[in-house]
Amino acid sequence: MKKIDRLLIVGVGLIGGSLALALRRAGVVGEIVGNGRNETNLNKAIELNMIDRYNLNLAEEVKGADVVVVATPVLTMNSIFELIATTDYRDTIITDVGSVKRQILQFAETHFDPSYSGFVPAHPIAGTEFSGVEAARVDLFDKRRTLVTPTDNTGRHATDVVTQMWLAAGSIVETIDVAFHDTILSACSHLPHLAAFGLVHYINNHEYRQECFDLAASGFYDFTRIASSDPVMWRDICSANAGPILQQLNGYIASLQTISNHLSAGNVHDMQGIFHDAKSSRDYHFSKLPR
Amino acid sequence: MKKIDRLLIVGVGLIGGSLALALRRAGVVGEIVGNGRNETNLNKAIELNMIDRYNLNLAEEVKGADVVVVATPVLTMNSIFELIATTDYRDTIITDVGSVKRQILQFAETHFDPSYSGFVPAHPIAGTEFSGVEAARVDLFDKRRTLVTPTDNTGRHATDVVTQMWLAAGSIVETIDVAFHDTILSACSHLPHLAAFGLVHYINNHEYRQECFDLAASGFYDFTRIASSDPVMWRDICSANAGPILQQLNGYIASLQTISNHLSAGNVHDMQGIFHDAKSSRDYHFSKLPR
Repeated sequence: MKKIDRLLIVGVGLIGGSLALALRRAGVVGEIVGNGRNETNLNKAIELNMIDRYNLNLAEEVKGADVVVVATPVLTMNSIFELIATTDYRDTIITDVGSVKRQILQFAETHFDPSYSGFVPAHPIAGTEFSGVEAARVDLFDKRRTLVTPTDNTGRHATDVVTQMWLAAGSIVETIDVAFHDTILSACSHLPHLAAFGLVHYINNHEYRQECFDLAASGFYDFTRIASSDPVMWRDICSANAGPILQQLNGYIASLQTISNHLSAGNVHDMQGIFHDAKSSRDYHFSKLPR
Repeated sequence: MKKIDRLLIVGVGLIGGSLALALRRAGVVGEIVGNGRNETNLNKAIELNMIDRYNLNLAEEVKGADVVVVATPVLTMNSIFELIATTDYRDTIITDVGSVKRQILQFAETHFDPSYSGFVPAHPIAGTEFSGVEAARVDLFDKRRTLVTPTDNTGRHATDVVTQMWLAAGSIVETIDVAFHDTILSACSHLPHLAAFGLVHYINNHEYRQECFDLAASGFYDFTRIASSDPVMWRDICSANAGPILQQLNGYIASLQTISNHLSAGNVHDMQGIFHDAKSSRDYHFSKLPR
């Protein structure tokens, strides 16, 4: 790939920081500039050799960058795009890393000129329950999928640059429709997070919560790992993808209600059928994953 | 501890097999005899050096054993106890490893003589999503809690022997009330399993299930690990502890319904509050776990 001479990362946290580390490893970037609100955090990113320098003033850096990666919580992107739109951004490629795509695309369409073809929505499916710059890892994206969701308005060149960037970061890149992305992710990612948040919330308000946590086994520990994810990030994802998420959440509640009804009626045969279906399916789909 | 001259394990699977390995490691048993219905499995246990020999006829082995560990699915224990009660079991200590205790105690009270004080209900809180003798691990119980739930009828000596056995296997042993055990475990163990079974079942019946599994990230993988647990074992646990489990499951459904209502109403502040509560609680309770 052609080297990215200057990369600007807006929001140097888990994803932005890991991307910087992975692109440095690949030797495909010249200068990496950080932007954000928290100067301590940005200094930390310099110490960790993720960024070369930072600038708290985003507007000053857009024009000079070849690529701008917006890696803030989803709803923050609205004001970021609004600010970028006040600059001379037309020769700069802009991409994001958000877990929802339709809402972010609407933000972009609201603020960017209709003739601008440099915006490429993207979503690396990787993460940990930890957040912040110190959680960043050079191998976070290795063999993980990054979904790119270009629209009719997205230029071929811009899509290529963003695709090459994620490939260089270690990712497997796939192209997918924006709305389909949001539907699938609402089921396989957003729903499990809500299920985990809901479970820990329930246990935390349980009459015997201390005993529950004391006696929890590794199953509970793993099961609830994603409940340690950043609440603001997940509030934004839920707001921005409320329709599909509500559909999945209500479907899941109905599924649990079916189990509850079977158990209540002593219908153990059908209950076992659900368990068996779940086990077979999970064993089948995940038996060959390299983890 | 005084050595156990002969240990009889009924059901040589993940738990029974791991216990055999751990007690051999500690050098606290003489002979280990296996019993079960599956001869191939028992021969495998000999190959893996877990048991010295096996006998398909349980009744022949009870009297000669110092300790009998019943490690079958919970509902199977009823017929096992019934059979044991036909033998001269009065000088033998009998214990189990079931994930519910009240129902198992009822089985014991149904079949054993009221004057018999050698039955010690116990529950090692350890396991993996894998089952069967080949999943057994010598370190499965290391630093994991084993809960012992003696009743007024349980003899001091028998409780001591079972306690020492689990300590020798690497476990931390605690004594707890039978009914309280079933309440706490229904919340911190049984409920997460139902939540995981329900989630995978839901995704597996999703319109886009293939895409959902393809794009699932490590969060989903970890979250659903326990959905690969043995369906028969979990059917039995749910049947045997239906009351407490129903209470937790319905409480969890209500908790998810609250999130759904907040999301539906656009009440993101309260939704974020639930996420924040869950994250704080999990981070606090699990920050110091040695894993």
